[in-house]
Amino acid sequence: MARHPFDRAEHIYKNDAFAELVKDAVRFFNGTPVHELPLQERFTGSGVYALYYTGSNPHYARLADLNRLSYAVPIYVGKAVPRGWRQARVSDNLLTQSNELQNRIREHTRNIVIGDGLDLADFACRFVIFEAEGSDMISTVEATLIKLFRPLWNSAVDGFGNHTPGAGRFDQAKSDWDVMHKGRDFADKCRGIAKDLDTILKNIEAHFKRHHP
Amino acid sequence: MARHPFDRAEHIYKNDAFAELVKDAVRFFNGTPVHELPLQERFTGSGVYALYYTGSNPHYARLADLNRLSYAVPIYVGKAVPRGWRQARVSDNLLTQSNELQNRIREHTRNIVIGDGLDLADFACRFVIFEAEGSDMISTVEATLIKLFRPLWNSAVDGFGNHTPGAGRFDQAKSDWDVMHKGRDFADKCRGIAKDLDTILKNIEAHFKRHHP
Repeated sequence: MARHPFDRAEHIYKNDAFAELVKDAVRFFNGTPVHELPLQERFTGSGVYALYYTGSNPHYARLADLNRLSYAVPIYVGKAVPRGWRQARVSDNLLTQSNELQNRIREHTRNIVIGDGLDLADFACRFVIFEAEGSDMISTVEATLIKLFRPLWNSAVDGFGNHTPGAGRFDQAKSDWDVMHKGRDFADKCRGIAKDLDTILKNIEAHFKRHHP
Repeated sequence: MARHPFDRAEHIYKNDAFAELVKDAVRFFNGTPVHELPLQERFTGSGVYALYYTGSNPHYARLADLNRLSYAVPIYVGKAVPRGWRQARVSDNLLTQSNELQNRIREHTRNIVIGDGLDLADFACRFVIFEAEGSDMISTVEATLIKLFRPLWNSAVDGFGNHTPGAGRFDQAKSDWDVMHKGRDFADKCRGIAKDLDTILKNIEAHFKRHHP
C-alpha cells in the first residue's frame, strides 16, 4: 500500500447540525410531563430519564430549593438502552420492544425506598422514549443532560445506579451513595475502604457551590 | 403534585434528521484516507477508528478477501473519548486536546505486534476526529459502524480492546482474542475458564456465514 501523506485536517468531521439536534431533544425532554414514583403504568421502550428531589434531607436542601417552582435540576440522570445494544449495538426494534426504561426506573424506585434518609414521595421522574433508529441517540442525550445539569448522584455522590457486584467483585468499596443511604444488601458485603461520611458531605457542599451557587 | 395522566405518546421523541446525520458521518468516515500501522505522526484529538486486516491468517481469510480491492470491512472498530467524558461527560476542548485517539491506536498496534499469528504489516487503519461539541457524536458513530460492519473482534472474537484487569479481577477468564493470539502478559494471569480454541474457530465460521456470506 502506498503511504498516504498524513494530513490531520482530512480526518476531522464537522457538522453543526448535530449539536442543534441534540439541543432539540433536550428541549423536548425538559417539556415532558413529570410523574410521581412509583410509576403506575406498564409501558415498553428504552430511553433517557431524570429523577428530581424536592424533600427535606438537609444535605440536599439546595436541590429542593432549585426545584421549588419547577422541576429544573435533577438529582440523577440515566438511560436504558435496547436489549442487545451493549453487545451488538442493536437498535430498538418496534416489534420486540421490552420494558427496559420502566424496569430501570422501577429498580431506582426500590433503591430509594430501601435507602435511609430518603422518602419516595419526595421524588419525581421525567423520561423520554427513543424508538427504532432514534434509539441510537440515547447515549448522546443522556450525556448532554448530565453535562448540562451535573446531577449530584451522577457526580459528587457516586453509586446510586450500581447493581449487585458480579462474582468475586466484593473487594470493591461501598459507594458514596450507600454510605449516605444505608440499606442495600449488597453494599454491606463490599469489603473495600469506603469514603467516610464527612468527606462525602464536603464533596456535596463543594458540588453545589461550584455547579449551583 | 397533581398526578399527570399517563400517555406514553407524550414521551416519545421523533426526529428523522438524526439518522440522516449519523449516515453522513459514516459516509465521511468511509471516505477518509487509510494509514499503515504504526501511525508515524503525533496528533491530538478524540474520535472513532477502524482496523482492517488483509493478511493470510487462515481463520481471517474471508476478511482478506472482502478487503482485497478496498478497505471495506474492518476487523475492529473502536472509539477514544475526550478526557473527562466517562465521568462528567466533558466534551472535547480545543484548548486542552490530548492524544486520546492516537494513544488508543498505538495501544492496539502494540497488542497486534505481541499477539501470535498476526503481522502488523497486514493491518491498516482509518480514523475520524470529532472536535468540540461534535465529540458528543463519538459513541453514536462507533455504535453505528459496529452495527453496520459487525467487525469480528467486536463480536465473535471478544477481548482485543481489553486492558490489564484491575486489582483482584484476575478471576475472570482469558478472552477469546487472547486464546487466538497468545502473548499478552495479563492474559496468562487470568484464572477463569476460557473458551477452547475449537469453539472460537466455530464461532468465527458462523460469524462470517451469517454476516459476510
